[in-house]
Amino acid sequence: MTQLTEAKKGVVTKQMELVARDEGLSPEEVAKGVAEGVIVIPKNINHNFPPRGIGKGLRTKVNANIGTSAEHHDLREELTKLEVAVEAGADSVMDLSTGGDLDKIRREILNRSPVMVGTVPIYQAVVEYSERNGDFRNMDEDFLFSIIERQAKDGVDFVTVHCGVTRKAVELLEKEGRVGGIVSRGGAFLASWMEYNDKENPLYTQFDRLLEIAKKYDVTLSLGDGLRPGAIADASDKAQFMELITLGELADLARKEGVQVMIEGPGHVPLDQIEANVRMEKELCNGAPFYVLGPLTTDIAPGYDHITGAIGGAIAAAAGADFLCYVTPAEHLRLPNPSEVRMGVIAARIAAHSADIVKGVPRAQERDQMMSEKRRELDWEGMYQLALDPDLARRMRKESEAYMKEYCTMCGKYCSIRLNPKVKKLEVKK
Amino acid sequence: MTQLTEAKKGVVTKQMELVARDEGLSPEEVAKGVAEGVIVIPKNINHNFPPRGIGKGLRTKVNANIGTSAEHHDLREELTKLEVAVEAGADSVMDLSTGGDLDKIRREILNRSPVMVGTVPIYQAVVEYSERNGDFRNMDEDFLFSIIERQAKDGVDFVTVHCGVTRKAVELLEKEGRVGGIVSRGGAFLASWMEYNDKENPLYTQFDRLLEIAKKYDVTLSLGDGLRPGAIADASDKAQFMELITLGELADLARKEGVQVMIEGPGHVPLDQIEANVRMEKELCNGAPFYVLGPLTTDIAPGYDHITGAIGGAIAAAAGADFLCYVTPAEHLRLPNPSEVRMGVIAARIAAHSADIVKGVPRAQERDQMMSEKRRELDWEGMYQLALDPDLARRMRKESEAYMKEYCTMCGKYCSIRLNPKVKKLEVKK
Repeated sequence: MTQLTEAKKGVVTKQMELVARDEGLSPEEVAKGVAEGVIVIPKNINHNFPPRGIGKGLRTKVNANIGTSAEHHDLREELTKLEVAVEAGADSVMDLSTGGDLDKIRREILNRSPVMVGTVPIYQAVVEYSERNGDFRNMDEDFLFSIIERQAKDGVDFVTVHCGVTRKAVELLEKEGRVGGIVSRGGAFLASWMEYNDKENPLYTQFDRLLEIAKKYDVTLSLGDGLRPGAIADASDKAQFMELITLGELADLARKEGVQVMIEGPGHVPLDQIEANVRMEKELCNGAPFYVLGPLTTDIAPGYDHITGAIGGAIAAAAGADFLCYVTPAEHLRLPNPSEVRMGVIAARIAAHSADIVKGVPRAQERDQMMSEKRRELDWEGMYQLALDPDLARRMRKESEAYMKEYCTMCGKYCSIRLNPKVKKLEVKK
Repeated sequence: MTQLTEAKKGVVTKQMELVARDEGLSPEEVAKGVAEGVIVIPKNINHNFPPRGIGKGLRTKVNANIGTSAEHHDLREELTKLEVAVEAGADSVMDLSTGGDLDKIRREILNRSPVMVGTVPIYQAVVEYSERNGDFRNMDEDFLFSIIERQAKDGVDFVTVHCGVTRKAVELLEKEGRVGGIVSRGGAFLASWMEYNDKENPLYTQFDRLLEIAKKYDVTLSLGDGLRPGAIADASDKAQFMELITLGELADLARKEGVQVMIEGPGHVPLDQIEANVRMEKELCNGAPFYVLGPLTTDIAPGYDHITGAIGGAIAAAAGADFLCYVTPAEHLRLPNPSEVRMGVIAARIAAHSADIVKGVPRAQERDQMMSEKRRELDWEGMYQLALDPDLARRMRKESEAYMKEYCTMCGKYCSIRLNPKVKKLEVKK
């Protein structure tokens, strides 16, 4: 049984009740969304934590990617990143480790995480195979599926599987060309494997095998965009949309089989194509929750890609994207450190909340209205409490000469709010 | 003579030529935009520096607010902020000082600034009057105009004047009420003065006097939005648009008299109302360049408002806004320090560039394409050189274990780009 099979039978599970309470909705509303496949509740039957929902009518959620690489691996640092991400408000973490003891890292993260945990199983398949046997392109399908099953059994709540990297899509890509090529690791592994073995993508041809594993543990499938654009110049090309069409077909199949599914999206996208990308996903995938990576609206800001990602993420979420994968300042340069993880989460939460205000998410705008009331009252403690990062706001103000005064050093005693007694105070609409 | 009077006569000035060269346009195109009032070249006849243009078809420009307050004033710190802002790529600075020797601060900034300098003269009028005579509401109109003239004579390139804070607009505001009230300092000063003296706004009733000064020194008028929303809950109310209608009327008058003019805009605006705000400005003000403050898409991120401002600024600029006033991380808490000035400028430049890519600004997308090529070639030095902040990108990568390798620590040896030889390299379109 999965959340989806239960919802289809009209059962309101405990998980749906918890999600409803978290969102300020009725359990029936959540159950209906799950049944329709427009809401997922990623929660493996082997992983205990208070679940959150992703999808239509819910708060936009934020994921933080953590994990090691061959060049940089330290379990304690990853656990610190987990802690920092959760403390900063991440709704989810993905363990993308490719260095060190991968089973151990994943299990520790699963043990300690109070939020859902996702993975990209092909990373472990490639790393484990390469380390034992050399060239990963000699790996057979069974090995890949055995890793997926191992991770599912461990309690992973959602897995990215690049099922849409088909020969047809890669052919389109090769024909049209790209400035940036394939930037998805999963996509690049699969395309290389397929070319070397002259075979179709096993995650596509044996999708039923994937469904079986997913169903057994109620793992949500996150259908990955292995051909996502990694350059503004490559956005919205034929290969990208060929892949999306395939993901839409597979999403329908998954939902029919009672497997929860969401869709991953770009990437690097010019600002004026973001809304169209979201609308296409919703159309082609029957409203499946959309999980976007950024998107980044320019390529030229390494060191600041959390800001670029916040611009794209806010626009995507306002257009209907449901789940934002954070981007950290370290993107395109190196793995992030814990403080960059924190900045990435906060930037993505600003994007998510900016969108939730206009998406009509219950209670989203209330917090802004309360903040504005506190500002008008020059109630600093009240402002800190409503801030996304109360400690930082308090600390920054404390550094200023006006800390003990009612106003701040920006306008000083010429504070506009103090001059401003006559304008009627508008009551906050709740 | 002003740039506008010359352009109307069909004269292509040296300033227009310099702007054209800077933008990759023909001098005639720039002259045409100036003549139509859709481009301004803020450059006082008494201020020597290489001018930049603001408006239709040009790169989106970025302004950095600097300046002291009564509680925090140190000329050297402001000069450092000027340097930092210019080094980070600001196209303009505004001296918003309200503390210390205001004439001296402004003159030093004007002397040293290689970019245009703007001010809000009513700040100095209120501060100077208050310090000598007490309650600024007893100040007469002549005093205000004498300060405007003094600043114009000093070489200020553009001045914010809140001419649209009329009794009618304030009445609408009082009737409808607001959560945040009036947050513009200039707006609050004028509304208080008008109420106390039971008079109309002198910047409105004596607009011809303002035009005379502006014309004499070719000061560009930046018609300020003294009633801009300072809270998401207050966005797009009747008072705001009443003011905008008035600004549109005055902009027409100014242009008729040969005075260059731009319009200031909000403020705090929900994401889905930003485009409408830009379109209304362009309609109501006959395409006058639009200078927006942010806008901020949520109220709850003090400490990170450079990010919130980048989200709103990118959307505004993509919709047609021409000039972004940066917001620093210190907004709503205190005056920014130099490093926060830097972060504010960079965040606004990311927004401006993200918009320029989709606005069809000449050469904007080229830089992204070149960056993506360098990424595909794993040419790190090439990437740094194309980055908005080369030093930061270089430094961050240098901190990682893979610094001397071709790839980075994110994917490590499993770098997707190294796996990816077969996809044809798309030639960059120039």
